[in-house]
Amino acid sequence: MSSFGTLFKVTTYGESHCKSVGCIVENVPPGLDITEADIQPQLSRRRPGQSDLTTARDEKDRVEIQSGTEFGVTLGTPIGMVIKNQDQRPHDYSEMDDYPRPSHADLTYLLKYGVKASSGGGRSSARETIGRVAAGAIAEKYLYQAFGIEIVGFVSSVGTVHLENVTDLLNTLSRVQVDQYPTRCPDTCTSEKMTRRILEAKANQDSIGGTVTCVIRNAPSGLGEPCFDKLEAKLAHAMLSIPATKAFEIGSGFGGCQFPGSQHNDVYQMGEKGLTTFTNNSGGVQGGISNGEHIYFKVGFKSPATIGLAQKTASYAGVQGELKAKGRHDPCVVPRAVPIVEAMAAMVIMEYVIFWLG
Amino acid sequence: MSSFGTLFKVTTYGESHCKSVGCIVENVPPGLDITEADIQPQLSRRRPGQSDLTTARDEKDRVEIQSGTEFGVTLGTPIGMVIKNQDQRPHDYSEMDDYPRPSHADLTYLLKYGVKASSGGGRSSARETIGRVAAGAIAEKYLYQAFGIEIVGFVSSVGTVHLENVTDLLNTLSRVQVDQYPTRCPDTCTSEKMTRRILEAKANQDSIGGTVTCVIRNAPSGLGEPCFDKLEAKLAHAMLSIPATKAFEIGSGFGGCQFPGSQHNDVYQMGEKGLTTFTNNSGGVQGGISNGEHIYFKVGFKSPATIGLAQKTASYAGVQGELKAKGRHDPCVVPRAVPIVEAMAAMVIMEYVIFWLG
Amino acid sequence: MSSFGTLFKVTTYGESHCKSVGCIVENVPPGLDITEADIQPQLSRRRPGQSDLTTARDEKDRVEIQSGTEFGVTLGTPIGMVIKNQDQRPHDYSEMDDYPRPSHADLTYLLKYGVKASSGGGRSSARETIGRVAAGAIAEKYLYQAFGIEIVGFVSSVGTVHLENVTDLLNTLSRVQVDQYPTRCPDTCTSEKMTRRILEAKANQDSIGGTVTCVIRNAPSGLGEPCFDKLEAKLAHAMLSIPATKAFEIGSGFGGCQFPGSQHNDVYQMGEKGLTTFTNNSGGVQGGISNGEHIYFKVGFKSPATIGLAQKTASYAGVQGELKAKGRHDPCVVPRAVPIVEAMAAMVIMEYVIFWLG
Amino acid sequence: MSSFGTLFKVTTYGESHCKSVGCIVENVPPGLDITEADIQPQLSRRRPGQSDLTTARDEKDRVEIQSGTEFGVTLGTPIGMVIKNQDQRPHDYSEMDDYPRPSHADLTYLLKYGVKASSGGGRSSARETIGRVAAGAIAEKYLYQAFGIEIVGFVSSVGTVHLENVTDLLNTLSRVQVDQYPTRCPDTCTSEKMTRRILEAKANQDSIGGTVTCVIRNAPSGLGEPCFDKLEAKLAHAMLSIPATKAFEIGSGFGGCQFPGSQHNDVYQMGEKGLTTFTNNSGGVQGGISNGEHIYFKVGFKSPATIGLAQKTASYAGVQGELKAKGRHDPCVVPRAVPIVEAMAAMVIMEYVIFWLG
Repeated sequence: MSSFGTLFKVTTYGESHCKSVGCIVENVPPGLDITEADIQPQLSRRRPGQSDLTTARDEKDRVEIQSGTEFGVTLGTPIGMVIKNQDQRPHDYSEMDDYPRPSHADLTYLLKYGVKASSGGGRSSARETIGRVAAGAIAEKYLYQAFGIEIVGFVSSVGTVHLENVTDLLNTLSRVQVDQYPTRCPDTCTSEKMTRRILEAKANQDSIGGTVTCVIRNAPSGLGEPCFDKLEAKLAHAMLSIPATKAFEIGSGFGGCQFPGSQHNDVYQMGEKGLTTFTNNSGGVQGGISNGEHIYFKVGFKSPATIGLAQKTASYAGVQGELKAKGRHDPCVVPRAVPIVEAMAAMVIMEYVIFWLG
Repeated sequence: MSSFGTLFKVTTYGESHCKSVGCIVENVPPGLDITEADIQPQLSRRRPGQSDLTTARDEKDRVEIQSGTEFGVTLGTPIGMVIKNQDQRPHDYSEMDDYPRPSHADLTYLLKYGVKASSGGGRSSARETIGRVAAGAIAEKYLYQAFGIEIVGFVSSVGTVHLENVTDLLNTLSRVQVDQYPTRCPDTCTSEKMTRRILEAKANQDSIGGTVTCVIRNAPSGLGEPCFDKLEAKLAHAMLSIPATKAFEIGSGFGGCQFPGSQHNDVYQMGEKGLTTFTNNSGGVQGGISNGEHIYFKVGFKSPATIGLAQKTASYAGVQGELKAKGRHDPCVVPRAVPIVEAMAAMVIMEYVIFWLG
Repeated sequence: MSSFGTLFKVTTYGESHCKSVGCIVENVPPGLDITEADIQPQLSRRRPGQSDLTTARDEKDRVEIQSGTEFGVTLGTPIGMVIKNQDQRPHDYSEMDDYPRPSHADLTYLLKYGVKASSGGGRSSARETIGRVAAGAIAEKYLYQAFGIEIVGFVSSVGTVHLENVTDLLNTLSRVQVDQYPTRCPDTCTSEKMTRRILEAKANQDSIGGTVTCVIRNAPSGLGEPCFDKLEAKLAHAMLSIPATKAFEIGSGFGGCQFPGSQHNDVYQMGEKGLTTFTNNSGGVQGGISNGEHIYFKVGFKSPATIGLAQKTASYAGVQGELKAKGRHDPCVVPRAVPIVEAMAAMVIMEYVIFWLG
Repeated sequence: MSSFGTLFKVTTYGESHCKSVGCIVENVPPGLDITEADIQPQLSRRRPGQSDLTTARDEKDRVEIQSGTEFGVTLGTPIGMVIKNQDQRPHDYSEMDDYPRPSHADLTYLLKYGVKASSGGGRSSARETIGRVAAGAIAEKYLYQAFGIEIVGFVSSVGTVHLENVTDLLNTLSRVQVDQYPTRCPDTCTSEKMTRRILEAKANQDSIGGTVTCVIRNAPSGLGEPCFDKLEAKLAHAMLSIPATKAFEIGSGFGGCQFPGSQHNDVYQMGEKGLTTFTNNSGGVQGGISNGEHIYFKVGFKSPATIGLAQKTASYAGVQGELKAKGRHDPCVVPRAVPIVEAMAAMVIMEYVIFWLG
């Protein structure tokens, strides 16, 4: 299905080469100031053609609000948003008529639907995420205005280049700071290494994976559910629904599973507003419910499947051959993935907040 | 909420110290042979008191089917199941009246509900998972009979002891093989190291974390959805909803994100029944949809929060003190978590299969 | 599916001749006083064997709360409830082995599931409604305590015997008053006529239909949704999900559709707490949202399908013959349907209230 | 919420005076031929300005498919549709700034959202139904191609003018026949009486209600669910979600509730393809599941609330006064409601069909 959320529900439509992409956002609280100017910045952070590190495909990605607001104020009714597809070149990928791209969705879509969408990969295209980012921007504005909630994502690794001491950044890092680096990794030295790694992949007509880390600050305690809808479960669901993701961890993650309870437990101390934890290995969530500490998590993105480098592989017809993908594509998705991760995080928090507030 | 799934829907109830725990399972296909004997084995693999490595709390965990079958055959109507709580000792944990256990749900439940459930942690208790395992056993039987689907989980790490060459095991490993090891890690040498690590934690009145890896064999291709409900997204949701989980990865996971596309892509070759992939870094899922290869993933479990070792922490009242948790608790949950992981995997696959088949 | 509601979600299980029937109720607010004593009265109003007008099948229908409360107070966790089936006589209906009962679910269940449940009609049995009534009783208690909401149903027709001036009763009628009449029609003369009509049907081994009218008093304004989930739409859904129902109308209903707007519109006047309507043809709902007036509606129940009188009909095998149904059955369901209608109304209101309140 | 359906899910957006209205339709089967030409006819049957009997507001209501098809064939991905609002005159209804229209949603929206949408009534506008009709047209095409399912609605009453012998029409009536009458009541004499009644209301600046009857032919048996999601329950939900509806009945409806079982039961006979019923008081549904007979039902629509005739009523401020609504409005909605009823019926059947088929 193409909806996310039950109370704050986002439904998206659109493929790579159709007329427009967009979404309908339900249950945006009434009385919120929202215009296109609130949404465009995150779309622009997501859009292709931002730097040498991303695909040259040039899309303006201008959002147009269709409904749900009057004079820039939300009515409580669904917000329809449309973003026209401007740069459609459906014939670039001609070799794909013969070959399913390895590790792409070409074959599985065909197996599932029995219909082969035109070049571009259909719904598995990264353009599907535009509606998510637009919807997330609305959620973010509300969350910030109502609670001061801040959501900041950043690139924490590219290939084997890892940002160290990630948790030190969580208290104060801002998007402005993150955007000072073309990689969106907020450390000069590491960012430069990542840039070189991405440009190397680009030069090789290859690609490279990486990770995005994200922090949610100022989320109230009590968000989440005890059983199947734990906060971390919905975050994991949200993040693994982003194209090209392979892994998710909250708080101390896989690494934390190596420690004994006596070292891993977040003991309590009295703070100004109540009990706080001394450490935050839990990543702000205990028993599926937020405890008021920073919620932070990491998402793994594989290297993009579409590469220009020749791959020995079989065609749809089962004939062994060689595929060199043409067309424009990103050598590494993580810089552009940052606003998508933020958007999905905002949707998850918004869902719980609406349930919590009514 | 306490439901998982839309078409194959499982709804659970029950806390640690109530009359019974149980579940209602909707949309079990009619005409399936199901009796308690199909369900009890997985409950017995999950139950406490199996070995020195688990809690001494003794629960028979006998399932009783209430509805939905006649003469051992499913009717297509909801299957109600009840498992009585036999060993209730609500007064063991008396110190918890004063202290929220660090990294447990005691405080967040109180923040959310404003009601403090009696000792035992209420719905965050591991007994909540009994209903899941019972429901999963029904799904598994159907999946095996209809498609030959096999789901096998095993312990892949305890603390810093990691099982090597995990992917080599995926083709043939069976539950019978797994259960020959008290740790459920199917390698004699590694299992012994893990046993020592768990017993060390137990001796220290401490606890230790670990990981469970799980493979789903023979799942048909075409299961999954393109966008928000990708197969890996629902698996991640399912797994992170299990108590004490911190991380999820599918296929090559976080490690795979370090590789370039030219190495990570799973190129195609012609097989007997159609295209297959040469490698399986994708973990059997591409673009959110199964491709017919083994689906495999890893789940991280933190060390149990409840430990006998003294912890310097604050009481509910905000007074600094020392908590030594009494009562019975597991030093390490991963051996008992194996059937829970399998059950959740079965539910996810069943959901897609029912949608796929109607 | 066997769930009703999204936020206040009730999931039921159980057929006529299984071990027990029951339900799981999710999202009951924490801190509510609930014991079996709050639930049993409505179950007893629903149960068979109350008077000469109902089936002689004797079921105690004793509810046992399994979870979700401690010391009689709700925890916020799911409430599991079990009601044992005590009086099982699966062999009474032997002729049904050959004949699908006309206008019963025997044939459609077989067409849908391909499995014939034993005598008793399986999930189409009226015993399926027990879980609904138990869940509704919890909702009602909360709604009354939190808002003073009162829900009162009564029989407004049996066959061609109709209660006149129904709207006059809506302001003050109570369940105690309703229960003074064996028919649950709160008018001595009309009730007596109804009694005669039902006894006539019983004497003839025939059956008779009727209607139940229900009023919800003191519901706050603002409950409901603009579009697909209008308050009247969910009420209609809820009521038409009760076995044997054929029709639903809110406020002035079908009759009101004959009038011009100038007569039908509910004009406003200033009241103590804000604008109120002079008339209430709307039945307390405008544009899908409650306006604070009494919400009232009527539900039509057909005559029970199972009758002792001979029916010329075809067997499963397609052979024309004669069916005389044996076993115990109600000549008229409306007296016993009253608490079921009330329960479904309570669930609908509770759903909106939880969404409204958070 | 603004979604209808779980498997065949339609999500709509749009108010009276926003940029566009539209919808996203999920789970349209792949490989279906769909272009705007399949959708426009039903939109044109719904649109204003068709005859003297409807509002003069002139809207072209041209649908534009945004996504989900390529070369006129569905891909299996969501179909986005946009219909621009062309004739926006937000200042016509100026008196409404002071007065909530009696029996309209003006007051309840304000109570719910605390925001007053501009003149036109916001989401309660009939323009909200455009997305429904567009989505229904897609469902209808599939249902007809796959099963030969035909859905035909018609006007069965206006005010006190009722069409007689409605059930005689159910076997063969077509939309072409219905559209030969400006009232969409397929009987010359009755239609003329209705026309006079509507023109009388128009001349009086008043309005009048009526009913729409609808038949679904060739639906396969086995559609529906036993308990909360009975076929008639979802139909009732769907119909009562249409603006201005007050009542729903299936098959023999309220009238049938007056008859004894011996007369009302639909006895079986052997037909060509299996058992059929001799009569069809059940309206094609037994125990919530279709039995293969015609599914038919009736929906009641009240007289439109917005009338030019003076109404003595209170203003928002609580001051007694007189409201004469200006602007264009329908004196009677039932002729234009016919395609809306058909669309909602198609959505309900499609939901079950997709579940049934997978």
